[in-house]
Amino acid sequence: MSRMLPRYRVYLLVLATLLLTGCQNLAPRATGDLGLVIERATGSVQIIDTGSRSAVARIDGLGDLSHASVVYSRDERYAYVFGRDGGLTKVDMLLQRIDKRIIQSGNSIGGAISQDGSLIAVSNYEPGGVKVFDAQTLDLVADIPAVGENGKRSKVVGLVDAPQKRFVFSLYDSDEIWVADMRQSDKPEITRYRDVGEQPYDALITAEGRFYIAGLFGEDGLALLDLWQPQAGVKRILGDYGRGEEKLPVYKMPHLEGWAMAGNYALVPAVGGHEVLVIERENWQLVKRIPVHSQPIFVMASPDKRSVWVNFAHPDNDTIQVIDVATLEVVDTLKPGPAVLHMEFTPRGEEVWVSVRDANRIRVYDVYTRREITSIEMESPSGIFLTNRAHRIGL
Amino acid sequence: MSRMLPRYRVYLLVLATLLLTGCQNLAPRATGDLGLVIERATGSVQIIDTGSRSAVARIDGLGDLSHASVVYSRDERYAYVFGRDGGLTKVDMLLQRIDKRIIQSGNSIGGAISQDGSLIAVSNYEPGGVKVFDAQTLDLVADIPAVGENGKRSKVVGLVDAPQKRFVFSLYDSDEIWVADMRQSDKPEITRYRDVGEQPYDALITAEGRFYIAGLFGEDGLALLDLWQPQAGVKRILGDYGRGEEKLPVYKMPHLEGWAMAGNYALVPAVGGHEVLVIERENWQLVKRIPVHSQPIFVMASPDKRSVWVNFAHPDNDTIQVIDVATLEVVDTLKPGPAVLHMEFTPRGEEVWVSVRDANRIRVYDVYTRREITSIEMESPSGIFLTNRAHRIGL
Repeated sequence: MSRMLPRYRVYLLVLATLLLTGCQNLAPRATGDLGLVIERATGSVQIIDTGSRSAVARIDGLGDLSHASVVYSRDERYAYVFGRDGGLTKVDMLLQRIDKRIIQSGNSIGGAISQDGSLIAVSNYEPGGVKVFDAQTLDLVADIPAVGENGKRSKVVGLVDAPQKRFVFSLYDSDEIWVADMRQSDKPEITRYRDVGEQPYDALITAEGRFYIAGLFGEDGLALLDLWQPQAGVKRILGDYGRGEEKLPVYKMPHLEGWAMAGNYALVPAVGGHEVLVIERENWQLVKRIPVHSQPIFVMASPDKRSVWVNFAHPDNDTIQVIDVATLEVVDTLKPGPAVLHMEFTPRGEEVWVSVRDANRIRVYDVYTRREITSIEMESPSGIFLTNRAHRIGL
Repeated sequence: MSRMLPRYRVYLLVLATLLLTGCQNLAPRATGDLGLVIERATGSVQIIDTGSRSAVARIDGLGDLSHASVVYSRDERYAYVFGRDGGLTKVDMLLQRIDKRIIQSGNSIGGAISQDGSLIAVSNYEPGGVKVFDAQTLDLVADIPAVGENGKRSKVVGLVDAPQKRFVFSLYDSDEIWVADMRQSDKPEITRYRDVGEQPYDALITAEGRFYIAGLFGEDGLALLDLWQPQAGVKRILGDYGRGEEKLPVYKMPHLEGWAMAGNYALVPAVGGHEVLVIERENWQLVKRIPVHSQPIFVMASPDKRSVWVNFAHPDNDTIQVIDVATLEVVDTLKPGPAVLHMEFTPRGEEVWVSVRDANRIRVYDVYTRREITSIEMESPSGIFLTNRAHRIGL
């Protein structure tokens, strides 16, 4: 018998190992209705499930997550979290753990994933440039120092992905926009556009990936690059968009990703002013100013393009206003609570998830009745990023 | 020792059972890059993986799949396959098997999933009407007999989902469009639009869920319902769209889901003619006719809206033509092989997957170089449906 014991101990061991490794994750699940919420204060993220409207798991150890953003792998399994401290963290949404984490620079400000999902690009302040990584391994594939016309390294902002495996970004300190063609991943082909305007500070790309628009901190107006005719160069649009002659005090420069494209209109936050500007996309002319509660930050269109939801800068950031796109009027004002930082619509637009940092809550609203459906406890939540972003250009 | 044997046999047994049941599916995977291909001849579907560009598994026993279509659950785990024989099959994309299957009518023609993912609607020819099922259990939730103004039951066509938990569909035999408000799932609230035009035979809803457009078999022109102003009723547009006075021979009425919405234009297949029509979305006026190879069937815009891909009716269905949206000219002609039945773009538009039925192949093309990247063997493939449809309105 004593000869037997070790033997069936082995089976016990194998069994235990199996249970501890694989089988805890036996229950198969898909990730199409999952997302991540950034918990800045604790350097953690929470996986949320918009199907059951619940928090699924907390993952710690992601470092400094102020101004953090997220992109997803094309199979919607992995989230890439870009931290302020230069950390790039690959989170496994299925196994609910960090798959890989690297510190890729001293100070970074967001990133993007290539159209085919093979490359992750990160834009850095310090040292200024873009680093490109293999999406699977996080191995460095290309390093693009942002040395501007002035010979100095510049902070990089407004990095987005564009069709044909390109990344587009702006150089804050040298007033340039660069397009990096990554079709040969290790040999980026860079096209440089100079004198695009003073201090581009952020940018967006339209949903189909055609128009790249950079906001300018140093002057009024915006820089527009039409990627369908790159040879035409960068044009200046909306000359009166910005802080204006008298340089209004701006508590927070609005995000350009927060522009709402609805039908023929773009609804954009006025810089400094208490207005949402309505712009005709055909010719980029201002057609209307909609007075709102305070300085708008995010101006986001629901997936059905019928309503646009607006949050505001400190100290008026306890409020959301809703604009009806059909009438271009404010039709509702909500008070989710202190420090409404972000809003994310469910993919087909029936709900909007709102982070209320200082209430330590995510609030879920019915987009049509605008009633609160439920709320979920979080640690100072900021950004909310759902996995369906995996399927979209420029997000 | 003899006393020990049975005991560790038990462990062996447990171990074996574990391995055979759960652990075969241990390797966790996400479904965001999966899809289904309809194999009509064999009544089977194949799960495809656009990440590894491969076929993952074949699932049999789905009945008559001619003209079959597919929608996905909001978590992208389950596919709902609508068969011609009235079969509604719920396929588990993770466990690669049929989860549930019912025969819900004698003869059906497609379906839709509600905005919130809770309801599956199927449109039936025989008996004419719409049946609504619980997306999880496939239990019948509501039965909507399509009894038209003429008192007869009508074939139902052009069923789509619309925002605010509505389904919109057309009554072929009584020239009506119905909007079913499902906010109270078991008590559908029906709004009926009459005399919309002779024999609506198919329909589409625009990506944001605002415009429902039905094609008319019995006369020229199209029926347009603006869901933002339902009280305005159904308007007739494009009076000259159709088979025309001389009633051209039509080998196959083009699909309306195959309309390409690109920027301010809709590119639509001319009925009978060898043309793609370019329509100004602002006013639904015809602005250009693009001559093409033969009678177009699907006219599909790439996700970046830069190119539109067109396939054709028998006997000229070995060809695909590509239209450049910037110039509205045909820029390429491909010959994938006999019976090109369907095209599906990867979510961010780097590739297009093409079913070539009589070559028993799916061909994968680079959307930009238009070169074939690879091809995959299939049994007479027809429709291709990727899981990212889960996140879109009207698909």
